[in-house]
Amino acid sequence: MTLDIATRVYNHSFRIDPIVRSLLDTDFYKLLMLQMIWRLHGSVHTTFEVVNRTTSVKLDTLIDEQELREQLDHARSIRFDTRELIWLAGNSFYGTKQIFAPDFVAWLADFQLPEYEIVRDGTGWRLTFPGPWTHTTMWEIPALSILNELKSRGAMRGMSRFELDVLYARAKARLWEKIERLRVLRAEGPLKISDFGTRRRHGFLWQRWCIEALADTLSPDFVGTSNVKMAMDLGLEAVGTNAHELPMVYAALAETDEALRAAPFRVLEDWQRFYGGRLLVFLPDAFGTTAFLRDAPSWVADWTGARPDSKPPAIATEELLTWWRERGVDPQSKLVILSDGMDIDSIEACVRQFRGRTNISIGWGTNLTNDFDGCSPTRNDALRAISLVCKVTEANGRPAVKLSDNPKKSTGTPTEIDRYRRVFGTEGMETQAVLV
Amino acid sequence: MTLDIATRVYNHSFRIDPIVRSLLDTDFYKLLMLQMIWRLHGSVHTTFEVVNRTTSVKLDTLIDEQELREQLDHARSIRFDTRELIWLAGNSFYGTKQIFAPDFVAWLADFQLPEYEIVRDGTGWRLTFPGPWTHTTMWEIPALSILNELKSRGAMRGMSRFELDVLYARAKARLWEKIERLRVLRAEGPLKISDFGTRRRHGFLWQRWCIEALADTLSPDFVGTSNVKMAMDLGLEAVGTNAHELPMVYAALAETDEALRAAPFRVLEDWQRFYGGRLLVFLPDAFGTTAFLRDAPSWVADWTGARPDSKPPAIATEELLTWWRERGVDPQSKLVILSDGMDIDSIEACVRQFRGRTNISIGWGTNLTNDFDGCSPTRNDALRAISLVCKVTEANGRPAVKLSDNPKKSTGTPTEIDRYRRVFGTEGMETQAVLV
Repeated sequence: MTLDIATRVYNHSFRIDPIVRSLLDTDFYKLLMLQMIWRLHGSVHTTFEVVNRTTSVKLDTLIDEQELREQLDHARSIRFDTRELIWLAGNSFYGTKQIFAPDFVAWLADFQLPEYEIVRDGTGWRLTFPGPWTHTTMWEIPALSILNELKSRGAMRGMSRFELDVLYARAKARLWEKIERLRVLRAEGPLKISDFGTRRRHGFLWQRWCIEALADTLSPDFVGTSNVKMAMDLGLEAVGTNAHELPMVYAALAETDEALRAAPFRVLEDWQRFYGGRLLVFLPDAFGTTAFLRDAPSWVADWTGARPDSKPPAIATEELLTWWRERGVDPQSKLVILSDGMDIDSIEACVRQFRGRTNISIGWGTNLTNDFDGCSPTRNDALRAISLVCKVTEANGRPAVKLSDNPKKSTGTPTEIDRYRRVFGTEGMETQAVLV
Repeated sequence: MTLDIATRVYNHSFRIDPIVRSLLDTDFYKLLMLQMIWRLHGSVHTTFEVVNRTTSVKLDTLIDEQELREQLDHARSIRFDTRELIWLAGNSFYGTKQIFAPDFVAWLADFQLPEYEIVRDGTGWRLTFPGPWTHTTMWEIPALSILNELKSRGAMRGMSRFELDVLYARAKARLWEKIERLRVLRAEGPLKISDFGTRRRHGFLWQRWCIEALADTLSPDFVGTSNVKMAMDLGLEAVGTNAHELPMVYAALAETDEALRAAPFRVLEDWQRFYGGRLLVFLPDAFGTTAFLRDAPSWVADWTGARPDSKPPAIATEELLTWWRERGVDPQSKLVILSDGMDIDSIEACVRQFRGRTNISIGWGTNLTNDFDGCSPTRNDALRAISLVCKVTEANGRPAVKLSDNPKKSTGTPTEIDRYRRVFGTEGMETQAVLV
């Protein structure tokens, strides 16, 4: 074997191995939301905070604060490069040209991730991102992918080259078994599936392998990836719509209980001024799906579809189908995106249950890009994915709240949660274990 | 990614991708036998012939004659290099220094594989190696590993990079499952296992991966490899003793039926003039194990052990244990090497059955280095290992015969097989399917 001295010396000259190397290494919906936030809410201040819902795993003991700071600092040093901006401006997304306005793209050219704060509490650290909403929102995905990859690196430290080889071989073999099941599933009827696994990924390179594997074997039924950089690099569709932070911030800023109740629909009103077609997908569960559907203005039923995100997926989908029918809309013309902790079993079950009744599209996250449990040659529980989120906690100094359909997923101060529960009601909410 | 132009251009400048790149890429027993053949039988002429016992697979349609010629021609161009000869002369094998005499090592310096013959018969080709026994014997292993790797390459032609990635990932995951079972096995008691998979390997690099995997995870219970080059490169023990060609040639040269009956023991007499200790392992089945044990002089029971090679391994081992006991020898002091088509199930069964009763050592071949059946993402029966052998067919113009304990494995002309069966008897022989 030839020793390529230059390459070797160059590789060893890195101070760190950066996890995030491009500002496009984020979810597509972040850019869609950012454009709206930038245009409409440039003066809103928010704080995002990382929360580990897997309380059995202590992130601050697994991840060294200094290493974390170096990765976050590196991410802050990145800018959108010319090629990326040209691609954002020139590429069609969801069949639409110039989805990003020229002045927004021009603004992105100077974009930099804002400062972070690491707060020491007792023995550990807490990670928060205070600042303009136009900037803090962009930390969610890189912060989570940095934390998850640092956790993976920590879990793999000390493994031999051979053990790592076996680890990845088994993870590949496992993904292959899933692909074979998906091939059976699509042989039976329509299947639409995409990668939503950036935030929870084991690592950047592994996510890329997973995406390439699905693209190679399931196209065109594999419809794309939420990761903008992967979409650009691999020539795939960038997919995604919007997230809970929109209704959460709108709700936090609402001055009255009535304005609070209307906040989720104000989000949708704003959204449809920016986007149309398949991007008209509502997220019904920020303050409870049942309340959302009960209170929704009639035009909401005309939207393309919905992305239920905290009820068991089959239950949530049945509820949506009933609601559409009650509103005189044929569910067969609608789209339901299932992306809450989907694994191969629930994918199969849901696709089979709803085929012919509505259009199901799967956004496959953690179970796609971070399914290493049991793959290590020696037992390694630290490789198990955890339920890590980065949520908005305040807007303009007012506490932000998410109720969700699953009280275990609710975020916010107890007082405000109580108020929201009073305003929206608790109908249809049910506690479920949060796995990923 | 940096494009290393020089490497890329260099890689593309090869006319072929050579399979055999060193004369040490052979089984250790070949060198042990060669030293005896060279010293005692320098004037004997033999022919070796490749025989495919898996009649359902037509090798001459899977492997292009021209490609085969190029690989064989390349193997003929190789010489032992200085570093290899120094290692053979200076290394200890089986705890013995200078197991290879200086004049033998000096003779090796000029060694070259002799000419081969490809005979066209009907639509296909037959591969034979006529010439001095001192040279033709050395074709067995490279001829088989060339044919098996060409077959693998043919089977993988047209597979995408991704499919190949999955193929090897699944093969690695499968080997890992076997290793986990072996770890359980060794936790229960003694285990000795070595790689005997050169001739049947999927490919050179894959064999090396398998050996490194076992060395990494099972040492010191993984005791070494029969492949001399791998042993040298990886710092492992080279293992192996002797093969059927010795009794077959001695028998072919025997002038009378009585000399024929004595031939297997003449081999052992000669062998023990060259080697001692753990190399005193007899191969009882060339003309039937039961006949061999019945006719064996008393000193044969003093040898270190035996390598039964064609009866079901448990039956053969029980027969040996009974024989040692009848000869007043404690089987617990003896060694039984099982190397005939062992897979993980038969390894577990035999090790558990004979633990504490004798010393079992496993020589793991095809099921270690060529177990790809079902690993391909798309069905690919051509990746299944076949039962390919390279056997001596004549010595000084007289037909060579092997009866074996399994009539399906017998080789030679029908007339001579009949004669041998009359001389040795057929006691204890039973037809078994030949899988690998």
